[in-house]
Amino acid sequence: MSTLTDKLANRMLVKKGDKTNTIIKVKGCAIGSDQLAIVAGPCAVESEDLFKETAFKVRGAGASMLRGGAFKPRTSPYSFQGLGEKGLKILTKVGEEMNMAVITEVMDSEDISLVSEHADIIQIGARNMHNFSLLRKLGRCERPVILKRGMAATIEEWLLAAEYILDAGNEQVILCERGVRTSETWTRNTLDLAAVALVKELSHLPVLVDPSHGTGIRSLVTPMSKAAIAAGADGIMVEVHPHPEKALSDGDQSLTPRGFSQLMREIEPIALSTGRRIRS
Amino acid sequence: MSTLTDKLANRMLVKKGDKTNTIIKVKGCAIGSDQLAIVAGPCAVESEDLFKETAFKVRGAGASMLRGGAFKPRTSPYSFQGLGEKGLKILTKVGEEMNMAVITEVMDSEDISLVSEHADIIQIGARNMHNFSLLRKLGRCERPVILKRGMAATIEEWLLAAEYILDAGNEQVILCERGVRTSETWTRNTLDLAAVALVKELSHLPVLVDPSHGTGIRSLVTPMSKAAIAAGADGIMVEVHPHPEKALSDGDQSLTPRGFSQLMREIEPIALSTGRRIRS
Amino acid sequence: MSTLTDKLANRMLVKKGDKTNTIIKVKGCAIGSDQLAIVAGPCAVESEDLFKETAFKVRGAGASMLRGGAFKPRTSPYSFQGLGEKGLKILTKVGEEMNMAVITEVMDSEDISLVSEHADIIQIGARNMHNFSLLRKLGRCERPVILKRGMAATIEEWLLAAEYILDAGNEQVILCERGVRTSETWTRNTLDLAAVALVKELSHLPVLVDPSHGTGIRSLVTPMSKAAIAAGADGIMVEVHPHPEKALSDGDQSLTPRGFSQLMREIEPIALSTGRRIRS
Amino acid sequence: MSTLTDKLANRMLVKKGDKTNTIIKVKGCAIGSDQLAIVAGPCAVESEDLFKETAFKVRGAGASMLRGGAFKPRTSPYSFQGLGEKGLKILTKVGEEMNMAVITEVMDSEDISLVSEHADIIQIGARNMHNFSLLRKLGRCERPVILKRGMAATIEEWLLAAEYILDAGNEQVILCERGVRTSETWTRNTLDLAAVALVKELSHLPVLVDPSHGTGIRSLVTPMSKAAIAAGADGIMVEVHPHPEKALSDGDQSLTPRGFSQLMREIEPIALSTGRRIRS
Repeated sequence: MSTLTDKLANRMLVKKGDKTNTIIKVKGCAIGSDQLAIVAGPCAVESEDLFKETAFKVRGAGASMLRGGAFKPRTSPYSFQGLGEKGLKILTKVGEEMNMAVITEVMDSEDISLVSEHADIIQIGARNMHNFSLLRKLGRCERPVILKRGMAATIEEWLLAAEYILDAGNEQVILCERGVRTSETWTRNTLDLAAVALVKELSHLPVLVDPSHGTGIRSLVTPMSKAAIAAGADGIMVEVHPHPEKALSDGDQSLTPRGFSQLMREIEPIALSTGRRIRS
Repeated sequence: MSTLTDKLANRMLVKKGDKTNTIIKVKGCAIGSDQLAIVAGPCAVESEDLFKETAFKVRGAGASMLRGGAFKPRTSPYSFQGLGEKGLKILTKVGEEMNMAVITEVMDSEDISLVSEHADIIQIGARNMHNFSLLRKLGRCERPVILKRGMAATIEEWLLAAEYILDAGNEQVILCERGVRTSETWTRNTLDLAAVALVKELSHLPVLVDPSHGTGIRSLVTPMSKAAIAAGADGIMVEVHPHPEKALSDGDQSLTPRGFSQLMREIEPIALSTGRRIRS
Repeated sequence: MSTLTDKLANRMLVKKGDKTNTIIKVKGCAIGSDQLAIVAGPCAVESEDLFKETAFKVRGAGASMLRGGAFKPRTSPYSFQGLGEKGLKILTKVGEEMNMAVITEVMDSEDISLVSEHADIIQIGARNMHNFSLLRKLGRCERPVILKRGMAATIEEWLLAAEYILDAGNEQVILCERGVRTSETWTRNTLDLAAVALVKELSHLPVLVDPSHGTGIRSLVTPMSKAAIAAGADGIMVEVHPHPEKALSDGDQSLTPRGFSQLMREIEPIALSTGRRIRS
Repeated sequence: MSTLTDKLANRMLVKKGDKTNTIIKVKGCAIGSDQLAIVAGPCAVESEDLFKETAFKVRGAGASMLRGGAFKPRTSPYSFQGLGEKGLKILTKVGEEMNMAVITEVMDSEDISLVSEHADIIQIGARNMHNFSLLRKLGRCERPVILKRGMAATIEEWLLAAEYILDAGNEQVILCERGVRTSETWTRNTLDLAAVALVKELSHLPVLVDPSHGTGIRSLVTPMSKAAIAAGADGIMVEVHPHPEKALSDGDQSLTPRGFSQLMREIEPIALSTGRRIRS
């Protein structure tokens, strides 16, 4: 479709054009390949025991990477803000024990080197997608970056945010759709899976989907994971907590480890029918 | 999930509760059953020859029902408004020749009896979802009704619009998600597939998805059809035109018959992997 | 601004171009003139006594027209739907006694002649702005029409909805901004006063503002009335109820008669400073 | 209105409660007092000559403070990004020559001390309203902070962002409404003046309005400035450029100095009628 591909100027580094799709390799995973990237873990790292328990169970169910927040962007200054450096250390330790890549968010450019030491992949949250200064600095770091779409960002703005990172020298960018804000109130956000299909058409970058933040409702995580894979996503990023009712944040949208195992069973046939697999 | 099911009061007729899922039978199709409903056809009925050609081809590719507008809701009074009664007659004639159920929109309560004579299923478009007077009157007609979600309607409002029809006596209501309006500009609407999964959880009514209006972009229709089925939709409603570049409306989002055949091939494995089939 | 005026094609009847501003005269009021149109009254006509009491008080405070719903568009079929024809009769009777023009909504084209007999001005609510069939039929009636902006309608769509009425022959169209739906939850809608200024620039039609539905919060009605007039609105449409806490609908956003008197005192200096007056 | 004031917990520092309104004094101005704060200047500082010319003219017309960007948050990495430190120096120099307070944006916590040396007031742009790390650090600086509302931020999130700054120790916070993103396309944003009135009711902080970004259209800046003041804003922040057609950014929404003088003449009677004045 000429009109769409014309949307991104030829000079754009994010543009697919004649490029082959970018595949990002981290600890045995190849994000953007025919193996789906399955990222799982709690919203926040709350304690070493809890994180280890979660990691052990999601690995058993087939997850290939771990997520867990140490610096948490919270709407209120009085909400739990994450364990900070202590959380990062737990993340690294458990990642090494489980031999899994770990992903965590950075909120401040001052923390990039610290986070880079502890995480295999650095995440930019939706609230910082327009933080161009942070984007540029992550463009100069060695780690792959997951760039979540902003809460009201257009697809164009999202791709241009990625362009900031690529233009600064870091080619390892992974996009992540996590829903946009609408006037719907029963779901936390409106997950925009057409954006995933469109970005896969326009850009060579891998695209993940976060159905946990994208819906805010536990029972919708599995159907939306299936839909995401059917739409062409390169993987999913799912919140899992051993005891969601006690989680310090995002309990309502977290799967239990058992629920995550069920999700894995349900997505496998969808993955196979679209030429993907979920295990290496 | 108690909080969600509590959202709809116990008296609500749309509420799932202990009810079995509603299955609506029309000319050999069973909408809401394990056979997916595949509705295809042009945005508007433009001529008998064109409509017949389209019908013949989509039937061959596996469509089970025909769509085609005779009364078209257009933003400008100066745009093509549909063939009216002449279009209805073409619809009926071709439907009978092809032995397929036909679906068309009614915009005015005065036309309900006329449209009921010609169509097997009556559609309420997104622009009339809040037209409560029309809803009530369709609640007193014999035909099944497809109720499209309004452009900025919440899920709650959509279900309450269905309640108007059910409360007036017509139990044959089919919901259809067609995207909501957001600040995204590259796609025509933002297709809300989480709404589909949520409504399937809360209500016993069948739910279709319209990926043509939902995205406005031809190349996204197939990936979004796959995603819709993976999310649990009971069927899809797709715009097909033999010569999209000459269509009087919605050409950019219409598939060619060949593109529709490709769509059918791609959705079949997704359907099978979710326990559905696409042919009787 | 050439780009903006180019937005509306030259043939458009709503377009300002070289036309003088439309002034609509009803029972001693001139909507669109230098005298502001002040419409007040309850959301719904609930009883003759209550409506009369309200009318008497708002007239005393300076209102020039009465509003009151007889047919109410309600999200749920189980909410109070208005008194229907009985409400219309009360409206007419009180309007005549008070010598004030009365305004009420029509929801169904079948009711146009009935409503035309009872009301001086007919309102199309936000939920029916895209009901093109109703628009066309109001284009063939003798009464002036207030066209409220749809909940998610763009300015272009709103003006094209007005074009449907004008094109069908009725030149007496009054636009009314009542807020659009956004992700803000503390206010009921987001009142778009820039749309008022823009439409006054592009079109010759008068524009009112409804700060009651536009905000949903009683304490915001007066500041938004002042802002609307400062932005160039030709008048306001305000919900007033003698006992808001007992109102059958919209109590939270209704002013008391005393609150309305205070509003009138506060808008007068704003009106004067923009070359308008609030009394004849 | 008990329900609204209950929205902010009693411990909240932004909450009005029994507090007197905060007045922030900078170089002879008192933001939040009965004298309106009138901030004017170009989107970006482009050269010393241009900035000086603009400053001279807006001061003559009655502006009390100067705005001008040195670090510009731009959607594309290939757009003009501002003059950086060179721009800051021009800002300071001209501010001193004109004896006017100067306001500029900070995008990176690393630049806070540099920007603090050059600017009297530091601005957080809409794109960084959710950059909690930056908010906290500005909470520890000595300068007053203008906090623009995020593009899709709710009023609650905006107030909680302010709470981050107050909680970290800086009580000199000025809120600035600049429009939210909706599906409207003719205006750049939808200016939410009800949010201004609501925040004035709930919080003791001063609130400015930016009608330039809020509309994106030159001809709407004056009507929206009038509306903002009528709604209770403590001031306005307006883009002015001597040659808007040559501006490196935001030319379409910039007033000429002559247009700004006209704006000042038009807002004066509105200001007076709401108990405010525009000159000291």
